Amino acid sequence: MYEDRILKPELAELIITAQEAAMMFKDKMVVASSGFTKAGDSKAVLMALAERAHADPLKVTLMTGASLGQGTDGALVEAGALSLRLPFQVDPIMRRAINKGEVFFIDQHLGETANLLRANNFPKIDIAILEACLIEEDGSIVPTTSVGNSASFAALAEKIIIELNLSVPLSIKGVHDIFSTGEYPNRREIPITKANTKVGSSVIAINPDKIAGIVITQKTDSPAEIEAPDASTKAIANHLIRFFNQEVAKGNLTKSLLPLQAGIGKVANAVLTGFVHSDFEDLTMYSEVLQDSTFDLLDSGKLLFASGSSITVSQAYYDKIFSNFDAYKDKVMLRPQDISNAAEVIRRLGIIAINTALECDIYGNVNSTHVSGTHMMNGIGGSGDFARNSYLSIFVTTSAAKGDKISCIVPMVSHVDHCEHDVDIIVTEQGLADLRGLAPRQRAQVIIDRCVHPEYRQELQSYFDRASKERGGQTPHLLEEAFSWHVSLRENGSMKKAPI
Amino acid sequence: MYEDRILKPELAELIITAQEAAMMFKDKMVVASSGFTKAGDSKAVLMALAERAHADPLKVTLMTGASLGQGTDGALVEAGALSLRLPFQVDPIMRRAINKGEVFFIDQHLGETANLLRANNFPKIDIAILEACLIEEDGSIVPTTSVGNSASFAALAEKIIIELNLSVPLSIKGVHDIFSTGEYPNRREIPITKANTKVGSSVIAINPDKIAGIVITQKTDSPAEIEAPDASTKAIANHLIRFFNQEVAKGNLTKSLLPLQAGIGKVANAVLTGFVHSDFEDLTMYSEVLQDSTFDLLDSGKLLFASGSSITVSQAYYDKIFSNFDAYKDKVMLRPQDISNAAEVIRRLGIIAINTALECDIYGNVNSTHVSGTHMMNGIGGSGDFARNSYLSIFVTTSAAKGDKISCIVPMVSHVDHCEHDVDIIVTEQGLADLRGLAPRQRAQVIIDRCVHPEYRQELQSYFDRASKERGGQTPHLLEEAFSWHVSLRENGSMKKAPI
Repeated sequence: MYEDRILKPELAELIITAQEAAMMFKDKMVVASSGFTKAGDSKAVLMALAERAHADPLKVTLMTGASLGQGTDGALVEAGALSLRLPFQVDPIMRRAINKGEVFFIDQHLGETANLLRANNFPKIDIAILEACLIEEDGSIVPTTSVGNSASFAALAEKIIIELNLSVPLSIKGVHDIFSTGEYPNRREIPITKANTKVGSSVIAINPDKIAGIVITQKTDSPAEIEAPDASTKAIANHLIRFFNQEVAKGNLTKSLLPLQAGIGKVANAVLTGFVHSDFEDLTMYSEVLQDSTFDLLDSGKLLFASGSSITVSQAYYDKIFSNFDAYKDKVMLRPQDISNAAEVIRRLGIIAINTALECDIYGNVNSTHVSGTHMMNGIGGSGDFARNSYLSIFVTTSAAKGDKISCIVPMVSHVDHCEHDVDIIVTEQGLADLRGLAPRQRAQVIIDRCVHPEYRQELQSYFDRASKERGGQTPHLLEEAFSWHVSLRENGSMKKAPI
Repeated sequence: MYEDRILKPELAELIITAQEAAMMFKDKMVVASSGFTKAGDSKAVLMALAERAHADPLKVTLMTGASLGQGTDGALVEAGALSLRLPFQVDPIMRRAINKGEVFFIDQHLGETANLLRANNFPKIDIAILEACLIEEDGSIVPTTSVGNSASFAALAEKIIIELNLSVPLSIKGVHDIFSTGEYPNRREIPITKANTKVGSSVIAINPDKIAGIVITQKTDSPAEIEAPDASTKAIANHLIRFFNQEVAKGNLTKSLLPLQAGIGKVANAVLTGFVHSDFEDLTMYSEVLQDSTFDLLDSGKLLFASGSSITVSQAYYDKIFSNFDAYKDKVMLRPQDISNAAEVIRRLGIIAINTALECDIYGNVNSTHVSGTHMMNGIGGSGDFARNSYLSIFVTTSAAKGDKISCIVPMVSHVDHCEHDVDIIVTEQGLADLRGLAPRQRAQVIIDRCVHPEYRQELQSYFDRASKERGGQTPHLLEEAFSWHVSLRENGSMKKAPI
């Protein structure tokens, strides 16, 4: 059943069960796993490790590409199997453990984990678990629906366990582009000059001597859960489409814009969907995650090509795409996340980066990660890699949340992931604030005028006016009052000023 | 007297006085000037513009490479001639005007201004003033002690005024490396793979039709003011040298380390000086500003090569270097600041970046710019360009300032320029905190243990402990108390807790 998937026949001797693989791990090991935004993750071995840890306790460091699917992180946490996790997660059980301080979490730019490892700035990887759909004659592997950090893990790990996933069609071979800049001090350029430049190999090289086991599985990726656009997200999408039309009219951009990047989530999804019925054409994408909306745009003919690090789609789209993958193969490419998110390429191509903010402040600083400045939501992901180096750095959010009890535009963000230097445009359903070429006090007024929910606008204007008058400075603030909205939320359940 | 400096003789017809040049400017113009950290700036024309504005008011936008010398910014402010300034300044008169809101200031990553202009994200430049020491036969110019943004200004400005500076020896020709990645959407790689890779031209190309005037000057650069190392800065340097020795011993680095970048200031200067008597050898530098200490290191034989965007030295060093520039010419190179500070090159080469913090917080966020969160000091400069993309991002500061009334390690920084994702190491005279591979709560304890001034350690530990216990989260904070040290400083003149 798997003979056509292991082209180096003697490797078949290494086939073991997930339970046997789980016994290879020891306490305090550094474990790496494939997987980027639920796609191409370890499904069998990590789950077996969680089961084992219940009976036979151990704690490991676990690093991945990005989030895992299948409740894997939650199962590992419940088994007490994790001491440290990086660089991203979305699991509710893990989130709770992180915020209780029970599991340490390094929230990291997704483009940087591979660099950290290659710079010897992190302990060595003991075992890497890599999902593949094919093992080549030389031991190298064809990854599945993501590349993530797998190529770096394969190069750097002491031992490798391959999860050979028979459910992924072999037609996916050829969609991956595996490239490395090499090692310090002799690193080379990443010669990508267009979204579709192929610069590397279709397989991940593996030293066969490092393969400690092969686990056969047929578990499919966890499907993405897509929320349908609502009035707010449609309004945000419309503001952005109008803005892009204006930029084309001014001659700043052509109708094919510049390569797009869009974060995950319903707002970014709504924006991409908005392009389907627009006048733009010959669009390209150089992003992290190829979502349902990416394939809608490809199907519409508006989008010519999409480069990313994973295909993370809903079940219906998965079935559609992989039942006829040859139709998409020359239109999509999956790269290592240190390449999809490389500062070098993002700046060179001139990416238009669209990411979601948890909250923004009047000067345009953005919090993407920490609820009320303390509690981790998911992680910064790739938003920083793109925002800092993009042609246009756009952040989207609804103006208010939780029945308007929370204003998403606040006097001062309670945690800074993206500083004002790296935020060009903020969009809420209220409007779009174009901050390019503005000094902080000018930025504040534009954000207050365009983006703030009406229920909070007067209060925010009052804060800014009083800060400007009473304190002054480049970015006027009243430090003793800067977090008063967050404090009010904690104490009264709402940022709204109590009626007098 | 200037015939050997204008090799296209008909251009001599364009020679005008600085006063005549000043009359070319109109209200609301966007003006660009050469100059990076006091070196190679417009000395004659901008000063004449300030004089003119007293009699004949106008307000312009002024962008440069980085800071100007000669009190130029102050003179322009006093003449009311500036509406907007970017991307950096160090002038006390300008600083006051910025903080009063009288002059708008865009504090910008120094590597990004050229990209902003090339992306059409900023109004077009009407007139650029470029200091040169030679005009070639085709109208192109040889810059002087800095490159800054001059090559981009020359390409993008409507008109150009050349300040031909006769005081700069012609032997400087050949030290510049002018390269551009081209225009969107066809930008190319920056093929620098070593600190000394030369990739461009020794001159800045200029369309002679754009030259509106040539002003002859002999004004010299404002000399850098270097503070001698004191006990604190020497202690910081020693901590760092010890750390590098340990990294070599561990096999993470060789004795030639990786290319160094060092910010301006006495701490960075002390660190570089510390290398002179160290065991390191064959060092290289890929930095912004080549300072006195850079030339000490070159003279000592420890440093093989230094790439930067300016030579900014004290008068004695200026005299020494330029009386015998041929001795240094194959050891230094000056590049455009979008190349010296390019994310692409910084990451590829694996820079060790050493920059100064104004304050750090317990999680390793860094404020480089804003006193008490509101008042601009100088600007972020290139610190962000380097910190984000470096192999090692190091920030140095004394643990306390102003007679210890200010702790430079605080519960929460009042302004974030560098978020915790981008800070690997913090050093004060108390010690060195190695934050690599640590989660935020772990980072906090290391910073408190190693870096905090003893007078503030107990209070900071108390804050962290109470925040962890009472609020929890990935980065525990008590938002209502997070800025209490800053508020106390404002109200009581000290961050120290009042004795009970």
